[in-house]
Amino acid sequence: MSSLPSRILEEAVQEFSRLPGIGKRSALRLVLHLLKAPASDSRRLGTVLSRLRDEIRYCRICNNISESDTCVICSNPRRETSLLCVVEDIRDVIAIENTGQYQGRYHVLGGIISPIDGIGPQDLSIEPFLERIRSGEIREVIMALGTTLEGDTTTFYIYKRMQAIGTPDVKCTTIARGISVGDELEYADEVTLGRSILQRVPYEQAVARPNER
Amino acid sequence: MSSLPSRILEEAVQEFSRLPGIGKRSALRLVLHLLKAPASDSRRLGTVLSRLRDEIRYCRICNNISESDTCVICSNPRRETSLLCVVEDIRDVIAIENTGQYQGRYHVLGGIISPIDGIGPQDLSIEPFLERIRSGEIREVIMALGTTLEGDTTTFYIYKRMQAIGTPDVKCTTIARGISVGDELEYADEVTLGRSILQRVPYEQAVARPNER
Repeated sequence: MSSLPSRILEEAVQEFSRLPGIGKRSALRLVLHLLKAPASDSRRLGTVLSRLRDEIRYCRICNNISESDTCVICSNPRRETSLLCVVEDIRDVIAIENTGQYQGRYHVLGGIISPIDGIGPQDLSIEPFLERIRSGEIREVIMALGTTLEGDTTTFYIYKRMQAIGTPDVKCTTIARGISVGDELEYADEVTLGRSILQRVPYEQAVARPNER
Repeated sequence: MSSLPSRILEEAVQEFSRLPGIGKRSALRLVLHLLKAPASDSRRLGTVLSRLRDEIRYCRICNNISESDTCVICSNPRRETSLLCVVEDIRDVIAIENTGQYQGRYHVLGGIISPIDGIGPQDLSIEPFLERIRSGEIREVIMALGTTLEGDTTTFYIYKRMQAIGTPDVKCTTIARGISVGDELEYADEVTLGRSILQRVPYEQAVARPNER
């Protein structure tokens, strides 16, 4: 990848390889593809890029990406207003919505606390979340962050902030950790397997899940 | 991936997932990354996209991507002008240049014959190549296309066209097919192994390669 024969080609490869998961080699592949494809392809991509930043809006209530002032979920009167699920970003909202198992609302943090990446609590939508707690409408907060050091740290931080507010009538739960449905025990890691034993559930409860396929 | 909460988000994901090797899921990841990153990131990507199509030029002689009328390789007086290596695209030029084993010039076809993708000889830089052959300067043409059905078809087509010109003093060779350096015989496929036996080389020749690491 040493010597590209043109500066603009080099710049394009440079820009594409800034994107997550795209190395120099794939970047060159993408750029050469765009050069071969009809000019309208790269034009459309360029247009959508500039519209993206200008037109995208965030829900005033939950920080989800939205078409209007409040997102489709927050403005749906059939969603439970007392149940709040805290997630890292919109991909998690999509994933949970796809399960069809959740009827409450969300709060999208917009990231997780990660000192290595220079992301602290002030960079996330935590104050607006605490404001929702203070409003008195919420009865349960489901923490649904990834099981990483950063995810656990963020959950702990938010839990502590909730405690500091002093609302003992708001339950704080986390999504269950355990063996994936369809997985063999022998391939599960020890920590997950250990947790799944400690947090075992009554059999009747484990098999009685309404909307599951 | 069913319901994205915003139309512009959906359009952006659509455009990114048109790129080769990028599915809906990675496209959403890229778009969310751009939304979080500084606005200058997506602006730079947009700018480079529009400049790409306008500013990129192709070498008048070999069809390589170039800064000027003729590329750095064609305008280098120290490269052998009688030796021509025919490749599919610029990535192959980069790969061969990186070996440091080749001192001739190139001819970049800009693709290979692929009826499935609707690419015929007329879509490739074959006429300009034949023009170079007719000029009388070339002594050897090294065909360096991939070992696929399409690659072999293209090599055969070009070989036949060269024969039709009637220049018996121009040698046509192909790059050697064989076992990769460092590979075990037992893992090689039968066709490759078979070819590597048929096209065996004298030992003295096999070990005496000057610039190799």
